Amino acid sequence: MMSNHVYKSIELTGSSPKGMEDAIEHAIAKAAESVRNLRWFEVTDTRGHIEDGKIAHWQVTLKAGFTLDDE
Amino acid sequence: MMSNHVYKSIELTGSSPKGMEDAIEHAIAKAAESVRNLRWFEVTDTRGHIEDGKIAHWQVTLKAGFTLDDE
Amino acid sequence: MMSNHVYKSIELTGSSPKGMEDAIEHAIAKAAESVRNLRWFEVTDTRGHIEDGKIAHWQVTLKAGFTLDDE
Amino acid sequence: MMSNHVYKSIELTGSSPKGMEDAIEHAIAKAAESVRNLRWFEVTDTRGHIEDGKIAHWQVTLKAGFTLDDE
Amino acid sequence: MMSNHVYKSIELTGSSPKGMEDAIEHAIAKAAESVRNLRWFEVTDTRGHIEDGKIAHWQVTLKAGFTLDDE
Amino acid sequence: MMSNHVYKSIELTGSSPKGMEDAIEHAIAKAAESVRNLRWFEVTDTRGHIEDGKIAHWQVTLKAGFTLDDE
Amino acid sequence: MMSNHVYKSIELTGSSPKGMEDAIEHAIAKAAESVRNLRWFEVTDTRGHIEDGKIAHWQVTLKAGFTLDDE
Amino acid sequence: MMSNHVYKSIELTGSSPKGMEDAIEHAIAKAAESVRNLRWFEVTDTRGHIEDGKIAHWQVTLKAGFTLDDE
Amino acid sequence: MMSNHVYKSIELTGSSPKGMEDAIEHAIAKAAESVRNLRWFEVTDTRGHIEDGKIAHWQVTLKAGFTLDDE
Amino acid sequence: MMSNHVYKSIELTGSSPKGMEDAIEHAIAKAAESVRNLRWFEVTDTRGHIEDGKIAHWQVTLKAGFTLDDE
Amino acid sequence: MMSNHVYKSIELTGSSPKGMEDAIEHAIAKAAESVRNLRWFEVTDTRGHIEDGKIAHWQVTLKAGFTLDDE
Amino acid sequence: MMSNHVYKSIELTGSSPKGMEDAIEHAIAKAAESVRNLRWFEVTDTRGHIEDGKIAHWQVTLKAGFTLDDE
Repeated sequence: MMSNHVYKSIELTGSSPKGMEDAIEHAIAKAAESVRNLRWFEVTDTRGHIEDGKIAHWQVTLKAGFTLDDE
Repeated sequence: MMSNHVYKSIELTGSSPKGMEDAIEHAIAKAAESVRNLRWFEVTDTRGHIEDGKIAHWQVTLKAGFTLDDE
Repeated sequence: MMSNHVYKSIELTGSSPKGMEDAIEHAIAKAAESVRNLRWFEVTDTRGHIEDGKIAHWQVTLKAGFTLDDE
Repeated sequence: MMSNHVYKSIELTGSSPKGMEDAIEHAIAKAAESVRNLRWFEVTDTRGHIEDGKIAHWQVTLKAGFTLDDE
Repeated sequence: MMSNHVYKSIELTGSSPKGMEDAIEHAIAKAAESVRNLRWFEVTDTRGHIEDGKIAHWQVTLKAGFTLDDE
Repeated sequence: MMSNHVYKSIELTGSSPKGMEDAIEHAIAKAAESVRNLRWFEVTDTRGHIEDGKIAHWQVTLKAGFTLDDE
Repeated sequence: MMSNHVYKSIELTGSSPKGMEDAIEHAIAKAAESVRNLRWFEVTDTRGHIEDGKIAHWQVTLKAGFTLDDE
Repeated sequence: MMSNHVYKSIELTGSSPKGMEDAIEHAIAKAAESVRNLRWFEVTDTRGHIEDGKIAHWQVTLKAGFTLDDE
Repeated sequence: MMSNHVYKSIELTGSSPKGMEDAIEHAIAKAAESVRNLRWFEVTDTRGHIEDGKIAHWQVTLKAGFTLDDE
Repeated sequence: MMSNHVYKSIELTGSSPKGMEDAIEHAIAKAAESVRNLRWFEVTDTRGHIEDGKIAHWQVTLKAGFTLDDE
Repeated sequence: MMSNHVYKSIELTGSSPKGMEDAIEHAIAKAAESVRNLRWFEVTDTRGHIEDGKIAHWQVTLKAGFTLDDE
Repeated sequence: MMSNHVYKSIELTGSSPKGMEDAIEHAIAKAAESVRNLRWFEVTDTRGHIEDGKIAHWQVTLKAGFTLDDE
């Protein structure tokens, strides 16, 4: 992070049938539609749903931070 | 949660003189006025204020999640 | 707990449209059908589902302990 | 909390056959017999005892804070 | 989760030389041989063994939940 | 907190070359430009960047709560 | 742990008037009567009961893991 | 700590309009009026109140330990 | 714990050159000189001091609970 | 781990534009240049940087353990 | 952090009679004598010693990270 | 700890077939061969391996601190 910013972080949960990283990318892409200046994320929880003994989809919760300064 | 959504969660604190569940319902009802598609909540903290040796009101903090998809 | 026992604990999640305590009682009653000698519980998580801005049902996760000794 | 106080907090466990809130109120009422100026509480643990597959009594642990100033 | 179920969760550790997701899938597939109705999982720990400066295998610990109702 | 409010809390990170308290004040002042009715904060993380063996700037993460009622 | 196993872990509480290690050994010996292939344990809580100002017995909670593979 | 003492710790919250360190010193000075032999403290929570977009006062919670031996 | 009591818990640190259990027993014996009705304890921290590459003394921190009822 | 070793663990953060596992492998490969006998790792934090609404690189923090015995 | 580095973090405790920030700066300055490329720190614990009802010195524990790449 | 020192802490895991305290002493004795001025330790994890329903060896992880100053 740069020294002259104030950041706000939000909590998101993305999901994907493909895997953890795809779920994270899904959440960030969706948030980027309405939040400008996303800068970092941190994973806080990794879960998923099971159907017939297999993983039907993954769900990953993350915090994502963005700069408040130029908004 | 369904597999094709991205969720955002917010943190709320509701209060009530009646009890824990009423404080939670109060917070959710207030949030529902401005946030559509609330889907779940999770209690993170239960507190309260004491006056004259009795509980004057309860204060419960929760995370509440809603879908970002159709907004 | 008494001094001469070994306890095993299991993790359960009960749900109820009525409230937290009913969800806990529901989980314990169900577990008692197959586990004898349940002795104590500890709440580890309180969640719920929201529909139309109201709590549709509560979900409470708990650990429940029972004696292994006389089984 | 007001700005000109020093608070001390103590840890209590109350119990009740009726439920969580009654156990909390029981603990606070007992503490109020000897501690003046109780101002707030925070729940830290919710447990209970099971007999014959039903909850015999609830036990809730809480921190309770009081002002040191005028003692 | 649906409102009319009681869930039990168990803790598993799966391993794989390929990666995290394969280790999780391995654990779930093994558990599904004896536990019916697995519905969700949550990752609690990600570890691994190193040999000659490389990851020999990954070990992922997870909680997996299943419905008690129809058993 | 007063008994008749619902609070929402947000997570912010402020930075300052001067020190911890200045970083916190910076974050709150920035948030107050767009969020009315900020009432409390809680520090959750204290970090900083080092350049040439000295602290170049401090970064403090905090939760800040505000009333939803009159918005 | 070896790379080709799936482990399940269970939570146990053992007790002993002698001390911590004896309480742990007691829990493991009891579990080994019905669970084959116990491989490791991890202590999660150490408690005890006091009578007349002395420790009447120790109670230690642990997770114990065993291989699912050859069951 | 010296080897031949038993310590008791208490939890205090001090406040100050000036800053974190002043709030801590305030709490310790108040406790020292009635508790002899305070030896150490540990900060557990840093909070504050906001008025008109500025910090009105800081509130710091700490554990403070003292020797029981010579009381 | 019995159902009709309110418990208060205190935090103590005992030390001993002999070992962990002796440090715990030391703390409980000292507390029992002034607190009646001690019923349980829980270990929260195990530390020690090292001199010349050997453990000079052990320091164990614990919570100890006692009944408030008949005081 | 084998029974006759003493382990030391160090904390590392690796990064990669490709994904989580590559970041972990990168950290371990770098550490293996100067630390012999690395045996295990445990992931403690998963983060990343976002540029233009996409993940620019992943950053994973881990503990890695190695034997002290034969050094 | 930049994307092409591996970081190692170490844990330090600095002390100062002046205050928290001085204790942190003291620890970083000392570490910088032998560790090149220190880049960030994170505070993990804030403690202090009390003498005669006043803070004799502050002790702050922190993690400090540095790049392994060019060493 | 004395006021004029900077401490560094390292994380170690010692093992022993005899018990917890012996595993801790083993780790400290090994570290003392290469690290001068070890002053304190704190236990962070207690585990062990089971063979044939009995504890084959104990493994205890600890942080150990030493002075960096000029010693």
